[in-house]
Amino acid sequence: MLKLAPSILAADFKNLGQQVVETANAGAQYIHLDVMDGAFVPSISFGMPVIASLRSCTDRMFDVHMMVEEPGRYISDIKAAGADLICVHAEACRHLDRTVNQIKEAGLKAAVALNPATPLSVLDCILPELDMVLIMTVNPGFGGQKFIPYTLEKVRALRDVTERRGLDIDIEVDGGVTCDNVRELIEAGANVFVAGSAVFKGDAAANTRKFLEIFEEYKR
Amino acid sequence: MLKLAPSILAADFKNLGQQVVETANAGAQYIHLDVMDGAFVPSISFGMPVIASLRSCTDRMFDVHMMVEEPGRYISDIKAAGADLICVHAEACRHLDRTVNQIKEAGLKAAVALNPATPLSVLDCILPELDMVLIMTVNPGFGGQKFIPYTLEKVRALRDVTERRGLDIDIEVDGGVTCDNVRELIEAGANVFVAGSAVFKGDAAANTRKFLEIFEEYKR
Amino acid sequence: MLKLAPSILAADFKNLGQQVVETANAGAQYIHLDVMDGAFVPSISFGMPVIASLRSCTDRMFDVHMMVEEPGRYISDIKAAGADLICVHAEACRHLDRTVNQIKEAGLKAAVALNPATPLSVLDCILPELDMVLIMTVNPGFGGQKFIPYTLEKVRALRDVTERRGLDIDIEVDGGVTCDNVRELIEAGANVFVAGSAVFKGDAAANTRKFLEIFEEYKR
Amino acid sequence: MLKLAPSILAADFKNLGQQVVETANAGAQYIHLDVMDGAFVPSISFGMPVIASLRSCTDRMFDVHMMVEEPGRYISDIKAAGADLICVHAEACRHLDRTVNQIKEAGLKAAVALNPATPLSVLDCILPELDMVLIMTVNPGFGGQKFIPYTLEKVRALRDVTERRGLDIDIEVDGGVTCDNVRELIEAGANVFVAGSAVFKGDAAANTRKFLEIFEEYKR
Amino acid sequence: MLKLAPSILAADFKNLGQQVVETANAGAQYIHLDVMDGAFVPSISFGMPVIASLRSCTDRMFDVHMMVEEPGRYISDIKAAGADLICVHAEACRHLDRTVNQIKEAGLKAAVALNPATPLSVLDCILPELDMVLIMTVNPGFGGQKFIPYTLEKVRALRDVTERRGLDIDIEVDGGVTCDNVRELIEAGANVFVAGSAVFKGDAAANTRKFLEIFEEYKR
Amino acid sequence: MLKLAPSILAADFKNLGQQVVETANAGAQYIHLDVMDGAFVPSISFGMPVIASLRSCTDRMFDVHMMVEEPGRYISDIKAAGADLICVHAEACRHLDRTVNQIKEAGLKAAVALNPATPLSVLDCILPELDMVLIMTVNPGFGGQKFIPYTLEKVRALRDVTERRGLDIDIEVDGGVTCDNVRELIEAGANVFVAGSAVFKGDAAANTRKFLEIFEEYKR
Repeated sequence: MLKLAPSILAADFKNLGQQVVETANAGAQYIHLDVMDGAFVPSISFGMPVIASLRSCTDRMFDVHMMVEEPGRYISDIKAAGADLICVHAEACRHLDRTVNQIKEAGLKAAVALNPATPLSVLDCILPELDMVLIMTVNPGFGGQKFIPYTLEKVRALRDVTERRGLDIDIEVDGGVTCDNVRELIEAGANVFVAGSAVFKGDAAANTRKFLEIFEEYKR
Repeated sequence: MLKLAPSILAADFKNLGQQVVETANAGAQYIHLDVMDGAFVPSISFGMPVIASLRSCTDRMFDVHMMVEEPGRYISDIKAAGADLICVHAEACRHLDRTVNQIKEAGLKAAVALNPATPLSVLDCILPELDMVLIMTVNPGFGGQKFIPYTLEKVRALRDVTERRGLDIDIEVDGGVTCDNVRELIEAGANVFVAGSAVFKGDAAANTRKFLEIFEEYKR
Repeated sequence: MLKLAPSILAADFKNLGQQVVETANAGAQYIHLDVMDGAFVPSISFGMPVIASLRSCTDRMFDVHMMVEEPGRYISDIKAAGADLICVHAEACRHLDRTVNQIKEAGLKAAVALNPATPLSVLDCILPELDMVLIMTVNPGFGGQKFIPYTLEKVRALRDVTERRGLDIDIEVDGGVTCDNVRELIEAGANVFVAGSAVFKGDAAANTRKFLEIFEEYKR
Repeated sequence: MLKLAPSILAADFKNLGQQVVETANAGAQYIHLDVMDGAFVPSISFGMPVIASLRSCTDRMFDVHMMVEEPGRYISDIKAAGADLICVHAEACRHLDRTVNQIKEAGLKAAVALNPATPLSVLDCILPELDMVLIMTVNPGFGGQKFIPYTLEKVRALRDVTERRGLDIDIEVDGGVTCDNVRELIEAGANVFVAGSAVFKGDAAANTRKFLEIFEEYKR
Repeated sequence: MLKLAPSILAADFKNLGQQVVETANAGAQYIHLDVMDGAFVPSISFGMPVIASLRSCTDRMFDVHMMVEEPGRYISDIKAAGADLICVHAEACRHLDRTVNQIKEAGLKAAVALNPATPLSVLDCILPELDMVLIMTVNPGFGGQKFIPYTLEKVRALRDVTERRGLDIDIEVDGGVTCDNVRELIEAGANVFVAGSAVFKGDAAANTRKFLEIFEEYKR
Repeated sequence: MLKLAPSILAADFKNLGQQVVETANAGAQYIHLDVMDGAFVPSISFGMPVIASLRSCTDRMFDVHMMVEEPGRYISDIKAAGADLICVHAEACRHLDRTVNQIKEAGLKAAVALNPATPLSVLDCILPELDMVLIMTVNPGFGGQKFIPYTLEKVRALRDVTERRGLDIDIEVDGGVTCDNVRELIEAGANVFVAGSAVFKGDAAANTRKFLEIFEEYKR
């Protein structure tokens, strides 16, 4: 199933509740929450108190993307704030199995994100344990970047692997996703789509619906 | 002059804009913004994008408290987000003079924060360069803590030093400040008061006014 | 040849000498020594002075598993304490060839350990230089964990590689190894077996002999 | 009251239980446990499992000296292992008040250790919160060092401060303490004495009694 | 085209300008500049001011090999010092695509270096973005080491990959390269050759010419 | 005795040997060597191989200023390169007594440097062990900065302390020192003067002599 995950990083933090409600009511399945610590990536975005405040706005899946060093330290606090799914970077975890299992033992869905240059081989062993893989299609931690073309091939290669190994795993893409390139990403095998300014620049509800209409094409 | 600096960490992040406007309209002179990186302190609060969104709400002084490692890395981004004053922790800066001067060269007011156990002697040389000193009256990075009594003596000792050296420096206190203990802090020599739940729990405007009325007593 | 490596982490530190002697006299070929630094793994177990005290108890192979950051820093001290073999984690070494060669130049046997999620591909280049590979079958640094089933496939895959490349390399497994699952591990290709509570809970000599009897089955 | 704290770092780890019992039975009031992590100091000594094994040997005060980075991470594990008192290094704690209070809230006694070159001024604010200060009389992390003469003056200066401020705080000294220099240390104001090889080299019981006899001189 | 990259690390720093001019005039195509930070490797060699001073000596390609942690921090300063090509270690970059693109956006050629034990698979995704790959044939950061034989196979495997994928990428080798083994390296597929003492020990011009004569054999 | 310490950081690295000889022949007593690691300060300057090359130029005192993290790691390599005096930053050393004693045990003179904002109180205990204190009069790691006026008072305060405690310790100043302000520094109590561009911009020999002539005024 194809799912939209609007990233609130591109929303207006003055009226965050309303913005989240608009996109959720328009049908977005996930709310994508980009936690940045200023160490794994150069910016600090937001963390636990912001997520916790938003939890009462909607029961949509809170998909928390931890762009932080050693995210294992924060699993229980991020769960307490309201996460449904926690995604950690392979590059930030020395003990990836342990962190993935901490997430699953907390009763949440577990995902691993890969930076553009990180090869799929880092997932060789852990892949069957995951609910989702996030293929970064830009470098994490910066807004307004352009989609990196070579990551499309990586999505394809990962979808091949999951099919060959018989694994039912979501593939999320994050970075430069728009209504213009989303079909290409769907065809490559991605099924969860993070969209920031493509949703929140302008009318969030209308933008959400545009993505969902494209998704409809693939149901038929 | 006595000033109130409501900390938005205790506000509702769903309606942040409105909450900031309420306390500003009620007369709060500063807006206190607690940036936490999950490294200097164990939590990640919020950073540049949240501050930037709020800038259009009010022209009150944005007093940004950097509870982060090596805050010098972020001065230009925090300025761009809308800070008027940047406060860095002495414990987080190897090159304190350099960081203080980066702030001043950016055209902002510069402050240094001290953890409860950190002695005033770390400021011996840099004190005349500062616009403000922040005496932490709880340990930074945790909400809902109780005021640490021994820090009152530290406020007094610092006010003695600034008077003896003829320095015109604000003394801010942060942590467990309420209408019940603010008089004691004023009498010890503090003049800028961070208040979190004491402002945002309940009616932010009414709570703000209560502090300002107490401040009025000291004008006479 | 199949070898047992009782891990003293599960022994009684009040009577460590006696415990080591018991398992060695019962025929254990290796003594497995788990050094933890509280950084690579969250616990601190023991280090040089404990190993050095035990050296006079037995001439069995001291198989030192360094669960520490940048183990290259400690090679000469660990050798001086009495190690015969030093095993370092691939995840903890930026300069893996250098560290492996430091160990070999010290006249010791060199091994590399892989966390459960770490793919075999990290050994592509260095494999022919190694005396042993340690496949972690639990996450390192925690006692009493259960064997992770997917690591069995990794043992098999590694044995395939060593045979295909014509390399004579021991494969050690560590974590949740018991008399119940050891046959499966032998059949997958492992030949050195770390056992903690399976040896030291109860009668260490009797438990040691039980493992050795199973090993006998495979000699015939 | 004068107290002896034999450091097991100098004991024989093959027979640790017996060695601890001997010195405790001979009258040593504390057992000093030197935890080293290979980061704050260059060696790794021992940690939680060793302390936990020894807890059943004696009910003497377990005085755990954390020569580790950010000891706040380990307070609950060290308590669970059996500590009665936890001593942390001022040089290793960014949030010294928080760490001291974590120890006290765990129901344990709290101490702070100072390296030889660290000035007493770092304790200016936190001193009244402490049960003990440990003045290092050698550099931590190395055995067999000689007592650093200038630290004697520091003991005197600290005793002056505690008396002037009316504080009832133990002063412990650690490093190169022997029956030959212990009187000088007593007269300078120390009252808890860590002794390693001076206790465990030779007859631990007899060595313990020699210290206690010297202490008797000061009761009269 | 085969190119020589004399490494000034083996030159005489008293007369660096003259030494660089000699090898450049003798026909060396690149000048190899080994920046070491004492963290990624244990030594500190030289950095920006040394490179900047040399820039006026020659217009040869300045091939700067960053043996430093997180080289992304220094790209603009290294460019300003005069680099034409910047080579970063895969082991030192969490965000390898971002760093490579920083270099390219600065208008410079971008290369990635691999330590001896690092597998080629780390380049799976980023390879088409690179101008050059540096295969370390010794461990970086130490002088006078011997060529590691197994790295020859790695050069061959990389050349196979670049040909199979149709990529026009230089392969540089660094460590223990001499006139005696350079033919073997050329035949394995390398085409840029770092030489330190093989150039600067003795007559730099004559040594340079010896390499170039060997290169001539392969033009025919 | 007043001494000049020309800093080669401002020299021309193409002709370093000649530049060092010129200033030494003109009478400079020290050669000041600024080692920077890109971590303690943002730039990488030069390290062991550059110092070693220069050693044959002159027998003047090599005064090596380590602007690096944990300089204790490099003492033996810096000595081997030819240092006569090693100066370490108090801000970069957790175990300052140990590092100072490593330097002295290596047979070299030991100095400690203080950043502009670092209070003199950090030297309270270690001062009698030192041969020299370096008072930074600019922030370390950047060229072409202006002298920070408040550091003059710190020089005075330190000279008072050394005189009061009867200690024979050199006081070196580094940053923005010129013929115009050197008298003021001499009168404040400094006696070793680092000068970079004030020596090497223009005629190094003539500039050296200008400083020495000023020093002559104070002999009378």
